[in-house]
Amino acid sequence: MTYCVGFWLEEGAVLLADTRTNAGVDNISVFSKLHALEIPGERVIALMTAGNLAVTQSVVTRVMEGVGAASDAPETTLATTPTMFDAARLVGEAVRDVYRTDGPALEAQNFKFEASIILMGQIAGRRMRMFHIYSAGNFIEATPDTPFFQIGENKYGKPILDRVAQHKTPLEDAVKLAFISMDSTIRSNLSVGMPLDLLVYKRDALKIGLQRRIEETDEYYRMIRTRWSDALRSAYRDLPAPAFWGAT
Amino acid sequence: MTYCVGFWLEEGAVLLADTRTNAGVDNISVFSKLHALEIPGERVIALMTAGNLAVTQSVVTRVMEGVGAASDAPETTLATTPTMFDAARLVGEAVRDVYRTDGPALEAQNFKFEASIILMGQIAGRRMRMFHIYSAGNFIEATPDTPFFQIGENKYGKPILDRVAQHKTPLEDAVKLAFISMDSTIRSNLSVGMPLDLLVYKRDALKIGLQRRIEETDEYYRMIRTRWSDALRSAYRDLPAPAFWGAT
Repeated sequence: MTYCVGFWLEEGAVLLADTRTNAGVDNISVFSKLHALEIPGERVIALMTAGNLAVTQSVVTRVMEGVGAASDAPETTLATTPTMFDAARLVGEAVRDVYRTDGPALEAQNFKFEASIILMGQIAGRRMRMFHIYSAGNFIEATPDTPFFQIGENKYGKPILDRVAQHKTPLEDAVKLAFISMDSTIRSNLSVGMPLDLLVYKRDALKIGLQRRIEETDEYYRMIRTRWSDALRSAYRDLPAPAFWGAT
Repeated sequence: MTYCVGFWLEEGAVLLADTRTNAGVDNISVFSKLHALEIPGERVIALMTAGNLAVTQSVVTRVMEGVGAASDAPETTLATTPTMFDAARLVGEAVRDVYRTDGPALEAQNFKFEASIILMGQIAGRRMRMFHIYSAGNFIEATPDTPFFQIGENKYGKPILDRVAQHKTPLEDAVKLAFISMDSTIRSNLSVGMPLDLLVYKRDALKIGLQRRIEETDEYYRMIRTRWSDALRSAYRDLPAPAFWGAT
């Protein structure tokens, strides 16, 4: 399993991905699911992936390096797409291409073809956009009404986002939120695990603001983890007992 | 969908179930999923159900009224089983019986046979027990290490339980917890909805402590809902910003 969350905000974007992959509980590995491309001053594009690792790695290679395109023309990659909308179409087309190649063999062995991708980026002279691309290669775009996307094991970490996340949430608060949401997921699903990959992009910067691997020993993450747990426990303790309690 | 949570605690048990059923988003109804049997001084047995409504109603009728058993002997029901373990076996057998009757027809039309049941009760002279019964009629029992069971849409409401719920949690705190967990679920999944059915049983009482329908207008539930949201928001606000923030 996987958990990735991406925020599309007034100030910029925050992406956070776990790194655990598993083929059964007895076969667990660490793979980065966050891939970023930076041409300073010209473009920043990043994507996070969930689904079969063989499928998503193949998609990432296609869109980053252009390998696998069946054409004599110079291959389009995320480094050359003229717009973010074209970038989303390129990723969608890569997903469909992998499906054509690997889908039937996967399905013949009762594996589901799964790929879901969050794509965020900005190209000089254009606006920052974020897309959620599905297994069928189609996609939706984040808007101020729904300023975050989740892929993978999304449920445990969603309630806090539903309550707090807004388009105007500041970048640093979104980092906190991403950590809280990730921590809830890691606690409840063993197949989502540390370390984490974090990327922060400030709108119009056209360079990566921050890209960092968060290890289990990271002090800030540990602090969020402990203090959030403590805060939940104390909030729960402070709520009064049911008013109808006398009835028992 | 459905969300039910049951706590098996030192002091007793708390059961909370939503009442929404749906066959598609355009066909939503209210059905109780919590069924209780009380013979004061002799036994209290309650069950909560998730899955196909036709399946679970059929199971409940079989175990409550004995309808459908193919035997000349007086039918065993939850009112007559000598032990809670026998009660769990009776429910499991009823699930298998419905599977034999309805399973093939459901599967022929590509419906999955689904039934999952939380069974709690105590019979005079014996201890209070709680079981989680699966679609195959097999079951597990709550122990001090894992003092709660969830059925249906369990993920949204699980993080708070994982952090706080313990076997020694007082009954009234478990009611709070159940409401918080239910509220997180209702906010994130439209197919789980009000009103709620609550049952509280004090260990060794051999009568129902409290059984109550919680409507949307219930003041205590509304207070929990509002104050919990506020507490989460303020806990999140109080957490410091990332220490590595200067790096952007």
